[in-house]
Amino acid sequence: MPGNSFGTLFTVTTFGESHGPAIGCVVDGCPPGLALTAADLQVELDRRKPGQSRHTTQRREPDEVEILSGVFEGVTTGTPIGLLIRNVDQRSKDYGKIKDQFRPGHADYTYLQKYGLRDYRGGGRSSARETATRVAAGAIARKYLRERLGVEIRAWLAQLGPIRAQRLDWDEIPNNPFFCPDAEAAERMAAYMDALRKEGDSIGARISVVASNVPVGLGEPVFDRLDADIAKALMSINAVKGVEIGDGFAVVEQKGTEHGDEMTPAGFLSNHAGGILGGISSGQDITASIAIKPTSSIRLPRRSVDIHGEPCEVITTGRHDPCVGIRAVPIVEAMLALVLMDHALRQRAQNADVRSGTPVIPAKIPA
Amino acid sequence: MPGNSFGTLFTVTTFGESHGPAIGCVVDGCPPGLALTAADLQVELDRRKPGQSRHTTQRREPDEVEILSGVFEGVTTGTPIGLLIRNVDQRSKDYGKIKDQFRPGHADYTYLQKYGLRDYRGGGRSSARETATRVAAGAIARKYLRERLGVEIRAWLAQLGPIRAQRLDWDEIPNNPFFCPDAEAAERMAAYMDALRKEGDSIGARISVVASNVPVGLGEPVFDRLDADIAKALMSINAVKGVEIGDGFAVVEQKGTEHGDEMTPAGFLSNHAGGILGGISSGQDITASIAIKPTSSIRLPRRSVDIHGEPCEVITTGRHDPCVGIRAVPIVEAMLALVLMDHALRQRAQNADVRSGTPVIPAKIPA
Amino acid sequence: MPGNSFGTLFTVTTFGESHGPAIGCVVDGCPPGLALTAADLQVELDRRKPGQSRHTTQRREPDEVEILSGVFEGVTTGTPIGLLIRNVDQRSKDYGKIKDQFRPGHADYTYLQKYGLRDYRGGGRSSARETATRVAAGAIARKYLRERLGVEIRAWLAQLGPIRAQRLDWDEIPNNPFFCPDAEAAERMAAYMDALRKEGDSIGARISVVASNVPVGLGEPVFDRLDADIAKALMSINAVKGVEIGDGFAVVEQKGTEHGDEMTPAGFLSNHAGGILGGISSGQDITASIAIKPTSSIRLPRRSVDIHGEPCEVITTGRHDPCVGIRAVPIVEAMLALVLMDHALRQRAQNADVRSGTPVIPAKIPA
Amino acid sequence: MPGNSFGTLFTVTTFGESHGPAIGCVVDGCPPGLALTAADLQVELDRRKPGQSRHTTQRREPDEVEILSGVFEGVTTGTPIGLLIRNVDQRSKDYGKIKDQFRPGHADYTYLQKYGLRDYRGGGRSSARETATRVAAGAIARKYLRERLGVEIRAWLAQLGPIRAQRLDWDEIPNNPFFCPDAEAAERMAAYMDALRKEGDSIGARISVVASNVPVGLGEPVFDRLDADIAKALMSINAVKGVEIGDGFAVVEQKGTEHGDEMTPAGFLSNHAGGILGGISSGQDITASIAIKPTSSIRLPRRSVDIHGEPCEVITTGRHDPCVGIRAVPIVEAMLALVLMDHALRQRAQNADVRSGTPVIPAKIPA
Repeated sequence: MPGNSFGTLFTVTTFGESHGPAIGCVVDGCPPGLALTAADLQVELDRRKPGQSRHTTQRREPDEVEILSGVFEGVTTGTPIGLLIRNVDQRSKDYGKIKDQFRPGHADYTYLQKYGLRDYRGGGRSSARETATRVAAGAIARKYLRERLGVEIRAWLAQLGPIRAQRLDWDEIPNNPFFCPDAEAAERMAAYMDALRKEGDSIGARISVVASNVPVGLGEPVFDRLDADIAKALMSINAVKGVEIGDGFAVVEQKGTEHGDEMTPAGFLSNHAGGILGGISSGQDITASIAIKPTSSIRLPRRSVDIHGEPCEVITTGRHDPCVGIRAVPIVEAMLALVLMDHALRQRAQNADVRSGTPVIPAKIPA
Repeated sequence: MPGNSFGTLFTVTTFGESHGPAIGCVVDGCPPGLALTAADLQVELDRRKPGQSRHTTQRREPDEVEILSGVFEGVTTGTPIGLLIRNVDQRSKDYGKIKDQFRPGHADYTYLQKYGLRDYRGGGRSSARETATRVAAGAIARKYLRERLGVEIRAWLAQLGPIRAQRLDWDEIPNNPFFCPDAEAAERMAAYMDALRKEGDSIGARISVVASNVPVGLGEPVFDRLDADIAKALMSINAVKGVEIGDGFAVVEQKGTEHGDEMTPAGFLSNHAGGILGGISSGQDITASIAIKPTSSIRLPRRSVDIHGEPCEVITTGRHDPCVGIRAVPIVEAMLALVLMDHALRQRAQNADVRSGTPVIPAKIPA
Repeated sequence: MPGNSFGTLFTVTTFGESHGPAIGCVVDGCPPGLALTAADLQVELDRRKPGQSRHTTQRREPDEVEILSGVFEGVTTGTPIGLLIRNVDQRSKDYGKIKDQFRPGHADYTYLQKYGLRDYRGGGRSSARETATRVAAGAIARKYLRERLGVEIRAWLAQLGPIRAQRLDWDEIPNNPFFCPDAEAAERMAAYMDALRKEGDSIGARISVVASNVPVGLGEPVFDRLDADIAKALMSINAVKGVEIGDGFAVVEQKGTEHGDEMTPAGFLSNHAGGILGGISSGQDITASIAIKPTSSIRLPRRSVDIHGEPCEVITTGRHDPCVGIRAVPIVEAMLALVLMDHALRQRAQNADVRSGTPVIPAKIPA
Repeated sequence: MPGNSFGTLFTVTTFGESHGPAIGCVVDGCPPGLALTAADLQVELDRRKPGQSRHTTQRREPDEVEILSGVFEGVTTGTPIGLLIRNVDQRSKDYGKIKDQFRPGHADYTYLQKYGLRDYRGGGRSSARETATRVAAGAIARKYLRERLGVEIRAWLAQLGPIRAQRLDWDEIPNNPFFCPDAEAAERMAAYMDALRKEGDSIGARISVVASNVPVGLGEPVFDRLDADIAKALMSINAVKGVEIGDGFAVVEQKGTEHGDEMTPAGFLSNHAGGILGGISSGQDITASIAIKPTSSIRLPRRSVDIHGEPCEVITTGRHDPCVGIRAVPIVEAMLALVLMDHALRQRAQNADVRSGTPVIPAKIPA
């Protein structure tokens, strides 16, 4: 398979460029009988949509999704679900001036060298605009996981540049434009972002995600481990430079007595592993974090090279997110949903009739 | 594909358990005409082999590899290469006592719940013994990459618990049992490990890796990005809990002006990106780091549950590595080689005749 | 991968039902730099289009295709090509009456048992309408094969019920509504079809196809042999019940001295093998034939069962092709193009730099 | 995936050449808990084994299979099953003389042009010896299908050259060296083969196969239709030139009233479709036939070309089957088992919890 498909049994194939006629995807392998309407997808797309606060790009895309197939009389039929989102607000002229330049930190140079040509309008295929289709596809997976297995997936902005969320208040997340679970931190983030915008610079971020009620047994050792597939899914999001499962890089300094999660019949006593042991879900919360680099498109001048190999100065004046991490929160949820959905089907394929005889250990000891 | 194959065009399928008759793999898709002997694989296997110092498990496995197919008159034929390594030193009785217990931090519980049964001898399939086959397969990829493309891949132990390598001296790496590029740090590591072994505990580690001379253009957006596939490859190694590309988690606090690597005709001015832009190699060094958790098998007693759901105490007395990170160094190199090899073939498939007309930017400005 | 994708490196993923809003596909893996417009696809779609003579269904579908992505400034970019065809002439009421019945020979019963529900409008996903997207995707492959490798693919109706084409006149094929290379046979087919339509019955057909100038070396033993992939491709077309390569079933009674194609430096002396030896193209013409069953939708009453398990009588009055074989000709060409294109890329991936040193044997000795 | 793997969820990857050290395969995705010993595989291998009558090659291979992994305490564990068969009777010198020649009808020429070199010993990878590993893998699938789903798969030699089996007596099949279900025809086959051997020529054959008790619902439209995957599986067997499902090529002359299988609550009234409708199993017997070409290795002299492009005469004196069709019977069963097994798992993945509410129609009305 070329690179635009994700998943073995619940497979998403996306297409589309930032400034082409449309973006979209095909979701193949969805079990039949799932109630599904465009509204189910729209609610997730609206969370990712640009232009919702002064802190994200001012491009105005309605991101209205149309279901083209695979749903009949309100439920999925088991056949491929075609999804279409027309591009509307394409100010391509913004990009005319950088058509012959390689923007530092962008894919301009690598796309040109790989393919010999590139769609320079808004980054073409390399634009994060493509992730809208992931969010739409992920919404299907998420709905199935929630309704059939009780799985809940929630991501949040854990850190924006130097500012960290100090508390995890689920109810706060939708209340601020940062998906930040800490109202006080969100206020400081707003001030930080205002200053940054004035400056013309951009900033990195950390997003965390947790999936609860994941059944024990998902994941296919040895290569398609659940954590390996999550790492790939999250690293495939634009601008991501690091992925952690459970305690992540903190394990480097941990001892075995500290890290290994002890078990009792009443529940696991800790969750340093992040809900995955030997590449297989343990039934505990699956926890992960990612690092997102600062937006490469900034107003400040940068040294670069043009397509003729000559030196040039790049100043990016198009509409951009000064922190791409913010709008990545729904994308992270979507990608994790796609991985879990795929592995739920893979697990059912091989092990549908397995009964271990051993009681399931609760995710944690009830408080 | 079930979970035991890796790669799209250069595909490795592994099999075998820690205490079964043998482990092995099939490498499919290797280009023909590559000179190859068992000795080419053995040299890499010997680097990973257990029992080479007092700091790794005392299990004595010769790890002698036999090439069963795909090589004729000293060169690869383009047909699948079957590799076989017989298990020799299986002291299965070591494991009898934990046959009914779930070792904390291990895959015992998750394998049982997934499959309904498990090979408890030495962790069965979940044992890191399986990675010997990856090293053998990776040696083929590595040889091709080196001989045909000039790619060099080198990993090292960057940190063991609290002790960090402070310098990167390539020549030092093979001189100490830790693959540590800093002789002085290696000495402190030895003392640390001696104390740890006495204690009965284990410790985490960080490994770093760099691939040089990687051609520009490898990686398939949007899902099979080069960094996404590297993330999956490295996270699929036993005990890995985090993966970073380039600056990794440091990007969270970076600004765009700091992170974006500027370019001049004479070369890139920095490499925060770790050699990958938009999921495609830029020709700069590919740099990555991983976090490896402390070994779960420790002599100190741990609370757990048995297969009947009853509480129990687990003490692991088999032969184990107190720091699995040490022997993971050759495995990291092997997995990175497999990813690069696969993407080199994928790139050639789609873009063999592409000529961009734009000069290649040197990896860095010569000093 | 679920079942709606075809190809390893040049991958087509289709979606859409007979009476839904639209059908379409994503073509991933196309090399960049191929000149491509909607008109290039439309010309092939128009050949398959219904309602072009009294011998095919009177459904009027313009089958107008829109390119949604992957093409920029008139050439392919190497990113996925999204294609969309809106459904226009959906007379769903035609199907109301058979909504609760299983039409004999159709997929009604099997879809319901597989998925628990079905889109009964025009067969939903099981309708041959889906093949329009294959023709569009195949047109891209065909253009590449022709322009870059000189490959020509041509199919024809070799037999319609009892009437066989007796001569292969390439120029005649587009001159009659049957894609029949024998003008005289085509006239008899017209008379036969008129009588059949009156009768309310349907008839089977045989289609043959030849691909010329195929380079030697395509095909991946042992499972993805070129002939095996052609067999799958052709058998995946609706209503196909048999596939032959080269002499096909005639080989059952052939002796080795008769079948084995002798070679001379001036060329192969015969082509019983159909251009494939050991699963790899030999450079000779690739020849194949398929058998297409008579349309299952007929006006004559048939015994069947309804969704409650009760006996019923089925009379199909919708608009149908009395011989689905006729319009299958462009589909056969498209599927063969997809297979050859995929294998051309696979061959390049593994063996781009192979030089055998042995001269290529011409396909045949020039007359 | 390169070409040596078969199956999406129950995946077989084979390796090995005719005269290398060993052949073998990895079976990945097998559900856990299936009782399995080497003897279960050996019984099928023994049916395919060479040298069992004067009518097949006199090469003596014990074809003794060793299970290297994936089975613990007599049952499958859900991890990959490694299988190994050592080559024993390699008389490579037989092949020395044809090392520089291309045998007509063989893969010699195409392998050399594809890979630039070839293992000329006994055809190397292109030898039908490779199919022994398919038989071993197929035996696992077959055992699962039989024990868990009640599926029975039986193939037979339906025609050898001009001699057709006139009756289908299951008990007779193991009684003669031809797997022929008609004792009288088998006698004539023996005489025919004796004459043929004297003559130095070879002959083609037809094999038929039926799978009974296949559950309704297997098959993934639109490309991975059950019939399409069967066509690929059977066409991937060495020397196969044609595949038919159900009535096969006879449908060309059938009318819709004749072909479409009518249904009643008591059962299907006929089975022209061969148990597959719309690419999905109907619950009726799955029936298929293949055409196998005459062995290309014959004693009679043939015109050919050598590796320098010079004309030459080829006489093959190694040990060969004058009719490769005979020993293909167990291979056909194995390949059909692999397809059904894979699709049983795929069906369970997507539709495990589907309940249609419609009663299953019996395969046929009880006599």
